[in-house]
Amino acid sequence: MSHDVPQAVLPFINSIERFLIVTHINPDGDALGSSIALALALEAMGRETQIYDRDGVPELYNFLPGRDRVTTQIDEGEVSDMALIMLDCNTPERAGLKDFTFSRSLVIDHHATEKDFGYIKWIDRDSPATGLMVYRLIRELGVKLTYEMALNLYVALSIDTGTFRFSNTTAESLHAAADFVEAGVDAGQVAVRLYQTWSENRYRLLAHNLNNTIFRGRVAVTAITNEMVEETQTRPDDTETFVNYPLLITDVTISALIKQVKEGLWKASLRSKGNINVGKVAEAFGGGGHQNAAGCTVEGNRESVTEKLFEELLKLPAK
Amino acid sequence: MSHDVPQAVLPFINSIERFLIVTHINPDGDALGSSIALALALEAMGRETQIYDRDGVPELYNFLPGRDRVTTQIDEGEVSDMALIMLDCNTPERAGLKDFTFSRSLVIDHHATEKDFGYIKWIDRDSPATGLMVYRLIRELGVKLTYEMALNLYVALSIDTGTFRFSNTTAESLHAAADFVEAGVDAGQVAVRLYQTWSENRYRLLAHNLNNTIFRGRVAVTAITNEMVEETQTRPDDTETFVNYPLLITDVTISALIKQVKEGLWKASLRSKGNINVGKVAEAFGGGGHQNAAGCTVEGNRESVTEKLFEELLKLPAK
Repeated sequence: MSHDVPQAVLPFINSIERFLIVTHINPDGDALGSSIALALALEAMGRETQIYDRDGVPELYNFLPGRDRVTTQIDEGEVSDMALIMLDCNTPERAGLKDFTFSRSLVIDHHATEKDFGYIKWIDRDSPATGLMVYRLIRELGVKLTYEMALNLYVALSIDTGTFRFSNTTAESLHAAADFVEAGVDAGQVAVRLYQTWSENRYRLLAHNLNNTIFRGRVAVTAITNEMVEETQTRPDDTETFVNYPLLITDVTISALIKQVKEGLWKASLRSKGNINVGKVAEAFGGGGHQNAAGCTVEGNRESVTEKLFEELLKLPAK
Repeated sequence: MSHDVPQAVLPFINSIERFLIVTHINPDGDALGSSIALALALEAMGRETQIYDRDGVPELYNFLPGRDRVTTQIDEGEVSDMALIMLDCNTPERAGLKDFTFSRSLVIDHHATEKDFGYIKWIDRDSPATGLMVYRLIRELGVKLTYEMALNLYVALSIDTGTFRFSNTTAESLHAAADFVEAGVDAGQVAVRLYQTWSENRYRLLAHNLNNTIFRGRVAVTAITNEMVEETQTRPDDTETFVNYPLLITDVTISALIKQVKEGLWKASLRSKGNINVGKVAEAFGGGGHQNAAGCTVEGNRESVTEKLFEELLKLPAK
C-alpha cells in the first residue's frame, strides 16, 4: 500500500548520525516545508542535519520556522561523511548538485521517477505532496509532531494542493491538515501569508493582464509586454498564477500567458483544466511540462506568437 | 462542550414524523448544503421532509444532489402538522417566514443569536458552518453518511471557510472534510464548480474593477458604475467577491467596493483583514454586518461617496 513507508527507510535513518537534506532548485513550499520539517524531526532524534538549496528561501516563505537551516553552499569536507536525503525531486541535476557523490542516499519524492538515482528510492506519485510522505515518516519514526514541523508540513501540503482545491486532494491529506491545525497551525494566517502578500504594482499588472486576454472558443491567450512590466515596475515572478485567471471562466479550458523575453522572443506558460494535455503543445515548441501545466519559448512578435499558440492549442481535443 | 449535540435534539427528532426544513433568504452553500443533507438523513430514517427557501437554489448550486427538494412555496395546510427545523439562521424574518406558526421547532445555527426564536435552540458560534453541526447530528442519529449527504456538507463547509482558507478553519472541519472525501466527494471538482464558473463578461468586469481601485494607505476603494455593468453586460451578483481583490495586497487591510444603485445612491461592501471592525463604519452609515464583512448604502456621486468612505475607513485603528 502506497501510504506505507518502505521497510528500508527506517534502518537507513536509524543507522546514520549526520544527514544532508537537499531539494530542488527554485524551491516551492513543498520542497522547503518537507525539508525543514524532516530536519527538525531528525534533530529531535539527536541527529545532525544540514539543508541545502542552491537558490535559498524565497521571500514568500520567510515565515517558515527553521528556514535559517537552509544553506546555499555546500562545503565538500563538511558533507563528505553525511548521508544524502533528496526531497521533492529525484535527480542530482534538479537539486543543483554537480560535483558531489554520496555513498548513502535516500530519495523521497511524489514526482514520477525519471532517473535511477538514490540508494533507497521512495517515490509515491499518488501522494499530493512530498510533505505528506515526510509526515508519514515522522509518525513512523515516533517523533512528536511540534508546531514548527506542523507549520512547515501544512505549507508543503497547501502549496501542492492549492489549499485543497486541486484534484490531488485526498482524505489522507485533509486528515493530516487537521493534525497540523491541532498542533497549532492557524490555517487562516497561512492562507494570508501564501495568497495575500501582493504588491500594489502586482495588482496593477493583473489589471493589464485581464485587459489583454483574447478569447477564441475554449482557448484564452494573454500577452504581457515589457512596457506593461516597466509601467507597473513589477518583478519577473509577479506574473506567477496570472495564467490561471482565464480558467475562472466556465467555458475556458486552456489558457496561455506570453511574456516578452526580448525583441522577437516570448516565454509561454500553458495551463488546462481536466483531461487536456498542453504538455504536448509545449513539446511541439521545444518546451515541456505536464498535462495541465507546461511551458515553452516562441519566436515572433506579439501578434504572430499569439496566432501560433491559438493555432496549436485549438487543435487539442476538447477533453 | 460545544461539539456535542444538545440532549434535547435527539428526542425531538425521534418523536416527529414530518419536518419542514427552512433556511435563510438569498441562500448560500451552507444554507442549502446543510438543509439538503439533513433532509436526506431524515429521509434515510423514514421521515418525511420538505425544504423551503423563499429564493430557491441559485444557479451556482445546481450541482447539489437533492436540490430538487428545495421548494419556494409553502402550503399552509400541508405544513400545519409539520415540525420546523430552521438552519443557518435563527429568526423567522431571515427565513422569509411571515404568516406561519409552528408549535414544535428546532433552530440549528452558527450565527450569534439575535432573537429568542425556537423551542430548541442549538447555536454554536464557534462552528465554522451550520453544515458541520448537521454532520455532528447525522453521526449522533446513527445515519450512514452517503455520497449525496457528503457532497452537500462539503459544499456547506467549503463556502463558509473559503475552502479552509478563513481563520474559522478548525481541525474538526478538516477531519470532517476528509470524511466527505472518503465518502466519494471530489474536492477538485467542487472547487471548479464553486470558483471557476465565471462568464467571460464577469472576467471583463473584474478588469474594470481592478483598474478603478484607489489606494490610500491601508484602505482601498473601488467603484463599479452602471456604465461598466452595461458595457460588460454583467449581472448584479457578478461583482460578488470583487471587494476581496485589493486585500491580496500585503499592506491593504480594508477594502470597500461601491456599486451604483441609481443616480445619487451607492451600495457599499466593506471588508477587512484581521482585527479591524468595518461593521462599525457600516453602522455609522445606517447599514450593518460583522467585523470583517459589512455593508451599507451611501448617498452622493462617485467622488463624494468615495471620499466619505475613505474618511471613515481611515479613522479605524490600524489593527
